[in-house]
Amino acid sequence: MMYEGISHKCGYNDCYSLNETDLRIRLHANRSVVKAVLVHEDPYINGISGFSAWDGHPAEMKLTAELAHEIIYSVTVKPEYRRLQYYFLLTFDDGTVKCFLEDGFYDPSFIHRDEFAKHFFKFAWMNDSDICNPPEWVADTVWYQIFPDRFSRSEDGSKGRFRDWDVITGIDHKSLYGGNVRGVSERLEYLASLGITGIYFNPIFRSGTNHRYDTADYEELDPAFGTNEEFAALVKKAHDMGFKIMIDAVFNHSGPEFFAWRDVLKNGRNSRYFDWYYVNDDDFAGKKGNTMDGRYYSFAFVAEMPKLNTNNPEVVDYFTGICKKWIAEFDIDGIRFDVGNEISHSFIKHLRRELKKIRPDIFLLGEIWTDSAPYLDGDEYDSVMNYPFMQSIGNFFLDGSLNAGDFRYRIDYCYSLYKEQVNRVLFNLLDSHDVARIINRTGSYDEFIQQMTILMTMPGSPCIYYGTEIALEGADDPYNRRPMPWKDIESGKYEHITEEVKELIALRKSEGFKGKGGLFWEESDGSRLIRYSRGEGGRYRVCINANDYDVDPVVKGDVLFAHGYEDGRLKKGGVLVTVIKEK
Amino acid sequence: MMYEGISHKCGYNDCYSLNETDLRIRLHANRSVVKAVLVHEDPYINGISGFSAWDGHPAEMKLTAELAHEIIYSVTVKPEYRRLQYYFLLTFDDGTVKCFLEDGFYDPSFIHRDEFAKHFFKFAWMNDSDICNPPEWVADTVWYQIFPDRFSRSEDGSKGRFRDWDVITGIDHKSLYGGNVRGVSERLEYLASLGITGIYFNPIFRSGTNHRYDTADYEELDPAFGTNEEFAALVKKAHDMGFKIMIDAVFNHSGPEFFAWRDVLKNGRNSRYFDWYYVNDDDFAGKKGNTMDGRYYSFAFVAEMPKLNTNNPEVVDYFTGICKKWIAEFDIDGIRFDVGNEISHSFIKHLRRELKKIRPDIFLLGEIWTDSAPYLDGDEYDSVMNYPFMQSIGNFFLDGSLNAGDFRYRIDYCYSLYKEQVNRVLFNLLDSHDVARIINRTGSYDEFIQQMTILMTMPGSPCIYYGTEIALEGADDPYNRRPMPWKDIESGKYEHITEEVKELIALRKSEGFKGKGGLFWEESDGSRLIRYSRGEGGRYRVCINANDYDVDPVVKGDVLFAHGYEDGRLKKGGVLVTVIKEK
Repeated sequence: MMYEGISHKCGYNDCYSLNETDLRIRLHANRSVVKAVLVHEDPYINGISGFSAWDGHPAEMKLTAELAHEIIYSVTVKPEYRRLQYYFLLTFDDGTVKCFLEDGFYDPSFIHRDEFAKHFFKFAWMNDSDICNPPEWVADTVWYQIFPDRFSRSEDGSKGRFRDWDVITGIDHKSLYGGNVRGVSERLEYLASLGITGIYFNPIFRSGTNHRYDTADYEELDPAFGTNEEFAALVKKAHDMGFKIMIDAVFNHSGPEFFAWRDVLKNGRNSRYFDWYYVNDDDFAGKKGNTMDGRYYSFAFVAEMPKLNTNNPEVVDYFTGICKKWIAEFDIDGIRFDVGNEISHSFIKHLRRELKKIRPDIFLLGEIWTDSAPYLDGDEYDSVMNYPFMQSIGNFFLDGSLNAGDFRYRIDYCYSLYKEQVNRVLFNLLDSHDVARIINRTGSYDEFIQQMTILMTMPGSPCIYYGTEIALEGADDPYNRRPMPWKDIESGKYEHITEEVKELIALRKSEGFKGKGGLFWEESDGSRLIRYSRGEGGRYRVCINANDYDVDPVVKGDVLFAHGYEDGRLKKGGVLVTVIKEK
Repeated sequence: MMYEGISHKCGYNDCYSLNETDLRIRLHANRSVVKAVLVHEDPYINGISGFSAWDGHPAEMKLTAELAHEIIYSVTVKPEYRRLQYYFLLTFDDGTVKCFLEDGFYDPSFIHRDEFAKHFFKFAWMNDSDICNPPEWVADTVWYQIFPDRFSRSEDGSKGRFRDWDVITGIDHKSLYGGNVRGVSERLEYLASLGITGIYFNPIFRSGTNHRYDTADYEELDPAFGTNEEFAALVKKAHDMGFKIMIDAVFNHSGPEFFAWRDVLKNGRNSRYFDWYYVNDDDFAGKKGNTMDGRYYSFAFVAEMPKLNTNNPEVVDYFTGICKKWIAEFDIDGIRFDVGNEISHSFIKHLRRELKKIRPDIFLLGEIWTDSAPYLDGDEYDSVMNYPFMQSIGNFFLDGSLNAGDFRYRIDYCYSLYKEQVNRVLFNLLDSHDVARIINRTGSYDEFIQQMTILMTMPGSPCIYYGTEIALEGADDPYNRRPMPWKDIESGKYEHITEEVKELIALRKSEGFKGKGGLFWEESDGSRLIRYSRGEGGRYRVCINANDYDVDPVVKGDVLFAHGYEDGRLKKGGVLVTVIKEK
């Protein structure tokens, strides 16, 4: 037995309200802890000074996650009076029983020793306004990410102004293909037919590049993409068809043409907007190249992306106003915040308070690639782009020495970072405009289907990057942003792929695979056969054979989806999804 | 070697800005980690997509805390461009070397493998507005807590209305002794002579009890204590003498006479203020006794303390307004929030934002008895009453089986909970109106002096409960609130005690023992001889002999304070504080 690694914080993601009545409590433990019981009761059940006589009720905790060097026990309780005092009664592998209190481990006899100060854990009060409460609709949404310049171009009036849609050589950040709002509008039926229910747009506002992450004007659509009126009409049409719409907010930095930066360039220290940025060297106008010389701070040393000072209340007010305008003008449902962890917590908090007042169910998504717990306590973002999830899956397939148990550890790790209500709206993805496309990172189409299956059957809110439904190829930027090959799509070239992807998206909509709900693992047999189930009672089961040999998947129930499954054998690279019908 | 218990969160109290330039990083480890090096560099030093070639600079971390089952390594770095990517290079006791990244442990060779997604830790940006920044003045303050009804009564005009000051039998929560503002005013010289620089008042507003934690009117002083004008004049006089003033805010619950609760009692569900409280049973007016029947929620089931709903924006606005009035009318320097963890986080955050706008250096102190990290991230309270510190010291003296090493583990635990800037303003105490007085809890006067020495020589902001400077006796409430025995004090009965306490307070003001600054432990010899030093280079040294035999304290430098030190021997129960003079 050992104590190392046993920990619990009364707050954060270890003890928190799921809703007005349910309190979720979890314990980080090591594998020598074979049983964990939560002993809990109202702290004042014996009166204010009745601590010495305080006793609790036992509630056995469940082992809910296994990580490489940690296991997690969890339980949900309903405190009668909205507050809870508790400790953990732990049984170790050698039979030892100890009480784990806030300040350490004690023998059970200690609990009733009057003279000692006892540090029970205490969740003081379940306050409604502190409940982490991301919008429910996100858990049921299947997203589609559109890179606006490359998704679809309606030819009306735009002929000749842009590059040839089908020529994909020699592209850089200035190459414009002229994807536009009307083009998207023409493809809504296509997206609906895939099963998509939410669209996330990369930046759409006026800028000097095709990625538009260097905004020139936060209030006007990029003319190459369309007009504000066209976009408002698109959102209306999409809403009517049942789509949610999310747009991209680039508030970490502006582009070089943004009015405030132009004023700083012109007037230096005397600019009205000088404090909107972080300028260290007054005399920077003539200097070129990256900003490693420290003349001013910028995103990733990119000179054309000067960092906005989101600690300045004027900046906070300006961009809060921008979001309010977007909501009023376009009726958007979500905002994705670019470089979401470099902007200040105080800004995000302010923004959330103001935006949730006018639209309580707006979805606020941060672009953060790392563990984002400090941003997801309920008063900042609702969710983050789940790159750790993408990377955990990717690393498993890259490293043949890992087995299904290791895979579980990595996935459980991803879902152990946040609150349950955040897990079900995590923005899960396999690729995006910022990484090589999934088919380029997987070794094969089989593995593509395997990863897509994982994406669609795990808790969270999955997103498909445009073109991934046809396994579109593309290495890192700029090749991951090639124009959507509509001619080939319409000719049926990708139909076999799209049909499988559609089936996977359809799976997602069955009760068992929605964003919320448990995840149950079958014991690893030491091989690379991944098996887990979801839904009530784990009726929905996923088998993924990442071995380099065929296996017997031990079919349970009816087949919902099969890839590489023949004569009762699951081939290497195969997937089998089944459901046990309710009795 | 083992991995269990090695952890780090990029944020919270593991990675945070100390100020605009310094980033503090710490690692939780187990004792098999014999060396920890932070490998760090700007994330974009090789450009946006240069992650695979990313290398870092090494910075060796120091072992800064030892807990019972954990050790902590720390380091401070100055990121050149306000952001930092990093991992930990760990050497284990068997010679193994591993890289600890956000998602786990890897061989050093992994760091340069291109194809894998690598989860470096990344502190995205040091935003000024997110720096935890409690008022500096608190670290240098020595507080004195006054229970208003019992500290001092000026007899002008109050004769005969109250209990006989010197008779302390048969007291309950209604017994009024009539301590008043003018009485306090007359004793400011006395407090100054002790070395006190801050006064914390238990509630002073109109209420129906002598403890006044059941407020009837938040805007009017309790007439038994004085008038608003008198209190404003007292604060002015105290400020002129160099004292800071803190008052008590009871916002978790109101008293039964508060206008809003009276309205609810009268009008039930139709009351304008119904939603200011948590009333479950409309028809509760006739019911008596504690609120365990759930008719409405109250503090600790006390019927006379109905819980305010601090999730209601009206309630939030009302009490924010009250604080603003106090600041405007009384010019107070601090507010202590009663039951500081039952009121909502959202309320505390709002209150902080609003109050810091009008008085940036106001001190916001929460009454929380447990680990308070979720309230001390920089946007809620500045500090909390440090009961874990009181209890850790108390438990050590109660349990003779613990040695000086155990004592260190407990104290290091207390200082491992929060950020460095919070540690230096932690409101350290040995007793208060809520616990038996320290002399009742210690076995002897010697131990009283030992604990007082610890209080005055540890990081934080120490507070002396009125009367503790004369080792005033008193068991639990109501006996810990007896009237201050001024006649005996003036007759010189306690002079020998007060003189030693004064010396300890004076120690506190020497450079080495201020609220901020390091704490260095000497290796435990396995006995109960506690030895630690503070100040630059650890020049200030404290020896406390909690053994039941005399020891040789190995004098280092000049004696600053001695208790039970004779002929080079430190007696059992003795204290020796020394300083090595600067060269």
